[in-house]
Amino acid sequence: MARRKFWGWGLEGEGLTAPEVEQLGGVFADRLGLAGLRIQQPPRVAELDLPEPRVAPPASLEAAFSTDPYDRAAHTYGRSFRDLVRAFRREYAHAPDLVAFPRDEGELVSVLDWCTDSGVAAIPFGGGSSVVGGVEPDVGDGYRGAVSVDLRNLDGVLEVDQASRAARIAAGTLGPALEAQLKPHGLTLRHFPQSFEWSTLGGWIATRSGGHFATLHTHIDEFVEAVRVVTPRGVLQTRRLPASGAGPSPERLFCGSEGTLGVITEAWMRVQQRPRFRAGASVSFADFRDAVQAVREIAQSGLNPANCRLLGHDEARMSGSGDGTHSILVLGFESADHEMDPWLARALEICGSHRGEVHGGGDDPAATWRAAFLRGGYLRDGLVQLGLISETFETAVTWDRFWEFHEGVLAATEQAVREACGSGVVSCRFAYAYPDGPAPYYSVYAPGRPGQELRQWDDIKVAAAEAIAALGGTITHHHAVGRDHRRWYLREVPGLFADVLRGAKAELDPSGIMNPGVLLESGAVTRGSEGGRP
Amino acid sequence: MARRKFWGWGLEGEGLTAPEVEQLGGVFADRLGLAGLRIQQPPRVAELDLPEPRVAPPASLEAAFSTDPYDRAAHTYGRSFRDLVRAFRREYAHAPDLVAFPRDEGELVSVLDWCTDSGVAAIPFGGGSSVVGGVEPDVGDGYRGAVSVDLRNLDGVLEVDQASRAARIAAGTLGPALEAQLKPHGLTLRHFPQSFEWSTLGGWIATRSGGHFATLHTHIDEFVEAVRVVTPRGVLQTRRLPASGAGPSPERLFCGSEGTLGVITEAWMRVQQRPRFRAGASVSFADFRDAVQAVREIAQSGLNPANCRLLGHDEARMSGSGDGTHSILVLGFESADHEMDPWLARALEICGSHRGEVHGGGDDPAATWRAAFLRGGYLRDGLVQLGLISETFETAVTWDRFWEFHEGVLAATEQAVREACGSGVVSCRFAYAYPDGPAPYYSVYAPGRPGQELRQWDDIKVAAAEAIAALGGTITHHHAVGRDHRRWYLREVPGLFADVLRGAKAELDPSGIMNPGVLLESGAVTRGSEGGRP
Repeated sequence: MARRKFWGWGLEGEGLTAPEVEQLGGVFADRLGLAGLRIQQPPRVAELDLPEPRVAPPASLEAAFSTDPYDRAAHTYGRSFRDLVRAFRREYAHAPDLVAFPRDEGELVSVLDWCTDSGVAAIPFGGGSSVVGGVEPDVGDGYRGAVSVDLRNLDGVLEVDQASRAARIAAGTLGPALEAQLKPHGLTLRHFPQSFEWSTLGGWIATRSGGHFATLHTHIDEFVEAVRVVTPRGVLQTRRLPASGAGPSPERLFCGSEGTLGVITEAWMRVQQRPRFRAGASVSFADFRDAVQAVREIAQSGLNPANCRLLGHDEARMSGSGDGTHSILVLGFESADHEMDPWLARALEICGSHRGEVHGGGDDPAATWRAAFLRGGYLRDGLVQLGLISETFETAVTWDRFWEFHEGVLAATEQAVREACGSGVVSCRFAYAYPDGPAPYYSVYAPGRPGQELRQWDDIKVAAAEAIAALGGTITHHHAVGRDHRRWYLREVPGLFADVLRGAKAELDPSGIMNPGVLLESGAVTRGSEGGRP
Repeated sequence: MARRKFWGWGLEGEGLTAPEVEQLGGVFADRLGLAGLRIQQPPRVAELDLPEPRVAPPASLEAAFSTDPYDRAAHTYGRSFRDLVRAFRREYAHAPDLVAFPRDEGELVSVLDWCTDSGVAAIPFGGGSSVVGGVEPDVGDGYRGAVSVDLRNLDGVLEVDQASRAARIAAGTLGPALEAQLKPHGLTLRHFPQSFEWSTLGGWIATRSGGHFATLHTHIDEFVEAVRVVTPRGVLQTRRLPASGAGPSPERLFCGSEGTLGVITEAWMRVQQRPRFRAGASVSFADFRDAVQAVREIAQSGLNPANCRLLGHDEARMSGSGDGTHSILVLGFESADHEMDPWLARALEICGSHRGEVHGGGDDPAATWRAAFLRGGYLRDGLVQLGLISETFETAVTWDRFWEFHEGVLAATEQAVREACGSGVVSCRFAYAYPDGPAPYYSVYAPGRPGQELRQWDDIKVAAAEAIAALGGTITHHHAVGRDHRRWYLREVPGLFADVLRGAKAELDPSGIMNPGVLLESGAVTRGSEGGRP
């Protein structure tokens, strides 16, 4: 069986072929108005200069650990632009000293015990698709070493409760296996982030992943019925309940904890019957403002479409779904219980009242966009291979501030792109829509200068993040905080809430070994270090 | 203007008249098969023997405090059966030493500072409708005194954002004022707990109140966009966002915190346009099992009715909505955007497939039940006045365990009722319904023995709560934990999560003055006191 690329998306042998990369280069040179693009060769393990492991696994756990260079390389990075650039540069100085593959929960407990006793950082690793430095073992000097803890052996749908439409699923289960094992039961989680193929249930929960549903049940949080977590202080299991009013929700604390409080090992998930009825359409808007108004009205209508993705003019063009003269709204309703035609009819009426025109005949832009979305991981690899700067960042903001926000973020990012790269495109789509605001998703494409790509990226990233923070958005709607967003995250959350998280971490991970540097500063926690009267 | 009854529901002069109480006695004597019922007289302030205040307010804050006997009596209890019995017995030994009425947030900060410095417990008080001992200043000997902090002066809808359909609302705002002030904007929060008239936004958030919507957006949690909290360590304000994936949700920590971490002073709430379209029906089921199946199917259908309350046979009889030969499902759809007829039609089809019959003509059981629901506070007063034992408890459980759970809870409670009271009725309704389980709500009516009512109640309460805990329900779906449910709550939540709450409290309320004895044990917090390996 082919193994996963240690540096990029998917299995070895998969992804864009050399001619496809060349073709992509042609397309993007054309879209960005560039003369042509060079093609870099991906790294091979033999080329890497991995540092010697600073720690050795204990004899009792030797079978659970690997020091194989491929394993260490494959657990050095997530899949962000920064990660890919460094992979192409063969920079693997922060490879984990060891990779643990605990074969069951008991072994995971032993691994964390050893890490605690040895002063070694533990980095939970699901599918490794983080784009925010969430799995990178760059933990500073306060640790004797760093172990990437890969959950792949905690795998599978373990139990199905048909009556309650719920399933107990191991955290290391990848998207496709999860769906394949639910399917014989007529069930589906319907959680399809862009990383679906190479991300896990545990990773989705730990990062508050955004899924299939564009409205209503957007984040994985809504589907977590109960969760099980191995913390350095022991195992925590919440009770299966459809709902409760007993104190603050324990599940919600672990949604978004990003491995800093412990390792999620399994969860009871609310699943769905497989949809039998579908109704959908693509709607074109000559004016982006009209499209935004239509989305707002639909989001506030209570119709709750499963799909409600708005591609701005540039986004439609860059994804090949349109020619850049229109924004495109992809609408979809689905149900396992009833025909959705009345729902779609009303949504299209709303679009019509904002000058939206239903796409008739020819290529379906929704299908084009969907295909591009699912190939996103490979596309990103290809763009880096072509030396392009590419970045996506996403946020959410209330409707009242949307236009000022959007224009401000766009202007700041475009200016940074011009200054850093000379030229480039910043496009926007709405990934999710809420009654009180959209979740805009921005994509940046620009020419890179060889050897300068990280600095160029950083300049753009900082400009975009500063604009988001200043204009009242969130630093992330569904990509998580990781290490890359920490400085903006700690400005976004109230200081006293960061102290609460420090307090929670002090209770569950007193030695501070769990994913240090993610969400909070690295190291063991001291109480009340940053909060206080505003 | 009439002032509020210090001992019971509503304003002085409101509620059941003497003849109405007599009539109620006749009805319940009949329903319970009793010979007749005596009528007790409600207490008057002059009859109470309040203890001398143990502390005096500081001179600088004198205007914010009251030692008036009426004020102290009116802040001694919530509105549970236990509270009412003790009120009728003129037992006011745990009256707060002082009642604070801070006139603005600054004064609230000063009050909490003084409490912290003086070792005095602070009990946040919204509408005082707690039925779980959540506002009772019985804080043990570890404090020099107890202050009830009444939020009534932090009042009103402060700001409206029409575009985002959101409003900034002061925490002390009572239900009717909140709705009256939203109405001119065409908006509504649509949060109508039974306590609506005499409960506040801050209380709803602090206790994870259950509202109008029987499916989908059941708890107030869903509508909290941002929250502002005065803690003993300072003010915490979360950012207005439609959604975020940046770390664990700060809002969700304060939903259900029950005044133990600080005082909620205001919140940005997601509000609704006022519904213009409605569709509803009452459906009768000869067999409760059929009705339960229909509710499950509707809850899993994605139709998301606003109302979906199922009254069991006895519940229908005891509320006067039926004759006890049928269960009744009250279904309602509403929208500000579109006709709901296709939604109702499909829901009725589901009911029909489970032998449900739409109620045609004559009295509408839904209207009868709704009227009884809204008069619930007065009814409870009347029942206590008649010397009856009455208690309601509510929970939630997954569908797979529902029948075993329901039969077990019913059997345990009925046995306890028989043993404690000789006879009585235990009825059940579904207050809320989720895809993965219902939220059953049980009502107990039984004859009391003069002077023994609290012991009788306690025997029944313990039996019911033990059955709920043993059979996998939650100790509360929407009545909160307070002091009365604490021992079961601490068995329900994982020990390590209770430690997390202790850690959060240690960060925000290091002296442990905030509502001691609620959720957690009373007193300043020491870390890691109960958790650890299971």
